[in-house]
Amino acid sequence: MNQHLREYIDEDRLRADIVQTAEFGTIPVEEGNSRTVLTGTEADKQAREYFVKKLDERELDVSIDAVGNITGRWVPDNADPATRPVATGSHLDSVIAGGIFDGVLGVYAGLESIRAIQDAPLSPDRPIEVVAFTEEEGGRFSDGVLGSSVAIGASTVVDALATTDDAGVTLGEALEDIGFRGEGRLDATAWDSWLELHVEQGTRLEDASVSAGIVNHIIGTIRCHIDILGEANHAGTTSMGSRVDALTAASELALEIESTTTEIVDTHSETAVGTVGQFDVEPGSINVIPGAVHLGVDIRDVEYESMERVVSTIRRCLSRLEDERDVETAFDRPYDIEPVSMSDRCTTALHSAAAQAGIEITELHSGAGHDTMHIAKATDAGLFFAPSKGGYSHSAAEWTEWSDCATTTRLLAGALYDLASE
Amino acid sequence: MNQHLREYIDEDRLRADIVQTAEFGTIPVEEGNSRTVLTGTEADKQAREYFVKKLDERELDVSIDAVGNITGRWVPDNADPATRPVATGSHLDSVIAGGIFDGVLGVYAGLESIRAIQDAPLSPDRPIEVVAFTEEEGGRFSDGVLGSSVAIGASTVVDALATTDDAGVTLGEALEDIGFRGEGRLDATAWDSWLELHVEQGTRLEDASVSAGIVNHIIGTIRCHIDILGEANHAGTTSMGSRVDALTAASELALEIESTTTEIVDTHSETAVGTVGQFDVEPGSINVIPGAVHLGVDIRDVEYESMERVVSTIRRCLSRLEDERDVETAFDRPYDIEPVSMSDRCTTALHSAAAQAGIEITELHSGAGHDTMHIAKATDAGLFFAPSKGGYSHSAAEWTEWSDCATTTRLLAGALYDLASE
Repeated sequence: MNQHLREYIDEDRLRADIVQTAEFGTIPVEEGNSRTVLTGTEADKQAREYFVKKLDERELDVSIDAVGNITGRWVPDNADPATRPVATGSHLDSVIAGGIFDGVLGVYAGLESIRAIQDAPLSPDRPIEVVAFTEEEGGRFSDGVLGSSVAIGASTVVDALATTDDAGVTLGEALEDIGFRGEGRLDATAWDSWLELHVEQGTRLEDASVSAGIVNHIIGTIRCHIDILGEANHAGTTSMGSRVDALTAASELALEIESTTTEIVDTHSETAVGTVGQFDVEPGSINVIPGAVHLGVDIRDVEYESMERVVSTIRRCLSRLEDERDVETAFDRPYDIEPVSMSDRCTTALHSAAAQAGIEITELHSGAGHDTMHIAKATDAGLFFAPSKGGYSHSAAEWTEWSDCATTTRLLAGALYDLASE
Repeated sequence: MNQHLREYIDEDRLRADIVQTAEFGTIPVEEGNSRTVLTGTEADKQAREYFVKKLDERELDVSIDAVGNITGRWVPDNADPATRPVATGSHLDSVIAGGIFDGVLGVYAGLESIRAIQDAPLSPDRPIEVVAFTEEEGGRFSDGVLGSSVAIGASTVVDALATTDDAGVTLGEALEDIGFRGEGRLDATAWDSWLELHVEQGTRLEDASVSAGIVNHIIGTIRCHIDILGEANHAGTTSMGSRVDALTAASELALEIESTTTEIVDTHSETAVGTVGQFDVEPGSINVIPGAVHLGVDIRDVEYESMERVVSTIRRCLSRLEDERDVETAFDRPYDIEPVSMSDRCTTALHSAAAQAGIEITELHSGAGHDTMHIAKATDAGLFFAPSKGGYSHSAAEWTEWSDCATTTRLLAGALYDLASE
């Protein structure tokens, strides 16, 4: 790493990009800062156009692929354009009423890194690309991480473009509307390596009083959809002994998921989490015994085995509830992503950049997937975090100190330069 | 009781009225019979106009009060019009997609009883009135039993007429629309006594193979609205140890309500029931730890003390959950109706009519309130049930055999005649 590179990271320039992006889709709030940037909306168009303008200012080659992924490519004077590039980036979209750092920091830290390497001036051996992926949050068209899913070939362009929002508008139509339906397909397998900077969305960095966290593993996620069917009946005229109450059966399941996961945390894998986030009761009237509960369960860990243990517990519990409570149950597991480890090469580059810049870091796992979860299947990938004040995210309270934004961008620039200079 | 009166109950005539009424607001269903008759709708207008026509055919004095309660009054030749009348009846409205017997049987069994007494011909000493109360089901304007609530003075005419539906239409406007906003107020305190025939909405009569059930007590009802507030947070990045999960806390409460009520049934009062029918989870996303659950709890028994015991358990449980799970809780008890006993005079008249007609009966409590719950506070009141096949109610599967309709109407006619002949 070049020792002076970090001096060329311009905190004010980075901040100006993030603050300007926060204006697109901004929401008036009493405290904090909030924005809604859903794919294919006017706010998305503005955020994308500003990004492209900023790429143009540094004479990067801009390409937009068929699903709207934006890439800015810089080929340094010393670099052979035919060598595999080092890539970085994140996303510009947000959840409804989201924060201003989630995704945006990673995109503009990537651009700021290139600007700093250009300004130093340095000329690494490989091209460097900065990417803004489409629909990471899944706020309008998908369950999320759509653009990166296409970039690794896990989803086809055709399928992705045909995805519809609640009103029946396709992603293809929405991208066409804002002028960001491009051509071809961004191919992450062509990259030498990938780094993503993201806000932590938790308090581990704040608790450890460090400025950055280097991710070793991204948790896997299993999602289960469960139906528990009882008998809807009159709450007054149906005796306690003759009820088949779907809600109390579902309550047993929710508590068993909690206790089993907590036991796994205490004895096997402290990173395991199990959550019942959806719990829809039918008919949901105060004077009717619930006839059905539809549950959505989210299970995550860095060890796939412990995730499987929670699933086994759920299935045993459902079987017991059928026997003991006469309910019928249905179990579906439509979403199953194994944990993924970050590449040694990328984490080493991040560690070394941190050491040389004197940045205190910690190593941790990521409880959220991010686009890197996909990219790690296509090339060597690394992910690291900037601190989130109070751990708040997906809300107006999301905040990362500007100095921490700059410090983690220095780390990104150093590691990118290292990877591109091999 | 006149021994021949029961021969004048005409099953076909009664059946024709119920079948005709089932046509108003009828819903096409694959099996069974269903109707939706909400107060102030075209279906309600048709059901009311048919009833008034049938009252006119027997030259009953028809009056409509300010909240739409319809009364048909018969003054027998022997009777002094100034003496307190004996009254009977029920309601013509239904829940959405309700059955065809609920309420309608009670109204037309009342009219059929008067027709039979006229045809016998008999002339009791007191006037007899048959009543159709407005908005018993609470499908559009209220929590239910609105018309009878006004008839005993528990609600004022002004308040009742100002009640609005979800679209902001007042009961007054809706009644005006269908031509059934009358004048004055039906006064149940002016009655000598009251009898209501209703379908059981349970299987106790079917299980006991009897044609009628005489109610001794109507259960009381306490409804509680409970909020459990935790912290909505990311399901992936929030460790098990740092969660404040409103859903698992609420699940503990639901199970404690079930187990406490079951224990009361086993040891103190077998009629106690406790139900969590509403359980609304916020935000309700699969990847977010629930930040709030809003519960609606319905507690009923013929003993007020055991209802209070369930409430005490809820409050202790909430206090424990605040200590153990760090949740915040709020408790409200907006609906509190004490159990009510039927008058000895009325149940004796029913028992004696059953014995003389050779009708096998059982005595039981009512798990639902019905209009009689209110009327019992204003005058001597009795309530009895016809069997519901399979216990189904508030659905197309609701069914009472025509022979059972006729048998219970014979019982009603005998008891009304007795009460009117004292």
